[in-house]
Amino acid sequence: MYKFDVEDAAKKCIEWIRQWFEENGRGCNAVLGISGGKDSSIVAALCCKALGKDRVVGVLMPQGVQEDIDYAYGICEHLGIKHYVINIKDAVDAVKLQVLQSMDLTQQASQNLPARIRMASVYAVSQCVNGRVANTCNLSEDWVGYATRYGDGAGDFSPISRFTVTEVKAIGRYLGLPEKYIEKPPIDGLSGKTDEDNLGFTYAVLDKYIREGIEPDPNTKNRIDTLHKANLFKVKYMPCFEYNSAE
Amino acid sequence: MYKFDVEDAAKKCIEWIRQWFEENGRGCNAVLGISGGKDSSIVAALCCKALGKDRVVGVLMPQGVQEDIDYAYGICEHLGIKHYVINIKDAVDAVKLQVLQSMDLTQQASQNLPARIRMASVYAVSQCVNGRVANTCNLSEDWVGYATRYGDGAGDFSPISRFTVTEVKAIGRYLGLPEKYIEKPPIDGLSGKTDEDNLGFTYAVLDKYIREGIEPDPNTKNRIDTLHKANLFKVKYMPCFEYNSAE
Repeated sequence: MYKFDVEDAAKKCIEWIRQWFEENGRGCNAVLGISGGKDSSIVAALCCKALGKDRVVGVLMPQGVQEDIDYAYGICEHLGIKHYVINIKDAVDAVKLQVLQSMDLTQQASQNLPARIRMASVYAVSQCVNGRVANTCNLSEDWVGYATRYGDGAGDFSPISRFTVTEVKAIGRYLGLPEKYIEKPPIDGLSGKTDEDNLGFTYAVLDKYIREGIEPDPNTKNRIDTLHKANLFKVKYMPCFEYNSAE
Repeated sequence: MYKFDVEDAAKKCIEWIRQWFEENGRGCNAVLGISGGKDSSIVAALCCKALGKDRVVGVLMPQGVQEDIDYAYGICEHLGIKHYVINIKDAVDAVKLQVLQSMDLTQQASQNLPARIRMASVYAVSQCVNGRVANTCNLSEDWVGYATRYGDGAGDFSPISRFTVTEVKAIGRYLGLPEKYIEKPPIDGLSGKTDEDNLGFTYAVLDKYIREGIEPDPNTKNRIDTLHKANLFKVKYMPCFEYNSAE
């Protein structure tokens, strides 16, 4: 039976990161996009514990002006990690302009494009600093598909994608991060709404359902189950045709 | 034992594409980057057979001027599919400019960035035309890591990634594609060299090794084995820390 022990979980995760680098990038640096929210802050902190702060590189990627970017600078300074700013606005606008010459942009396309340009940008930095890219998705968000495939869903290694939001926050507190980086409400950057506004249920409710099987009201349960099923493809390698001549 | 029968392979692949759309995007369109080379030409042709040409959308993505773009237009016209042009130059330059404000660009970063911007672009188009993105990698290239992770290595479904170059070409001929799209030497777009120049061995040699176990000279065998082992991570979902409280 699953039982979350924050000290045990954090220590094993840190050891896993260390071991992963030992096997997949000895002496390489952990590189990650830093939004100022809990996930990137906590993954950065875990990487600092695993590799030392000199081997962690933050990439701030505002699109034009990011109102809450002080959180991103703040966590980098708190952890004492190197950080670079890549403004993605011109690249996003350039792709949009090209698409608009042929068709209207859907909201879905507009919403996912910045995440993919951020991925391209963080990899560009990573490939210039001998890096390996940390994914910062968590289990609760992945559960309902709250990530862009090949955007923020990408990465070379993923330290917290099997921890719920509740557990991730507990790890952040265990690591001694200032509360403001743990409880900053995540904003999707487009609508100004929080994740929980968009989803229509709280992570507290979702996490209890995932971990303890405590069912929310039938409508919410149905919504969670539907989102989960429809988004499972995002956390798998794409399906490939396997030719079997014997059939 | 593996035995490749071109007619059987092509028919089963076409049926797999049809079935995949039935289950994962009923009525959706197949969207793919079209370079004019064999892989994208043959995947486009397979999708046309599976879904009908009206449900296949080609995206031409030159970076500034692409000297051989006539091949890309040519195959779209030959197949009779809709096609759009997204020039990626401005977006690539915009990211480079941002990175250059902080550091020098490595060759590796310069080489992979356009592939990732193409991925972002083809997904932007796909999300505007009710699409599903076809991956166009083949087994031989994947075997030695000749694809950019989260770049041309991305996609929603992958029809030919378990077929060698030799087999892919046979499928192209079986489908009746003009020889020039099958035998166009692939250029990596940066150095002007062919894949085979860069790799230092031919796909004919590689494919015989993969399928029949016919070993090339020891140096080449060693090079293939080293590349294969070092690039296996690209064809898997990234590793995630799995917390096991019982340990």
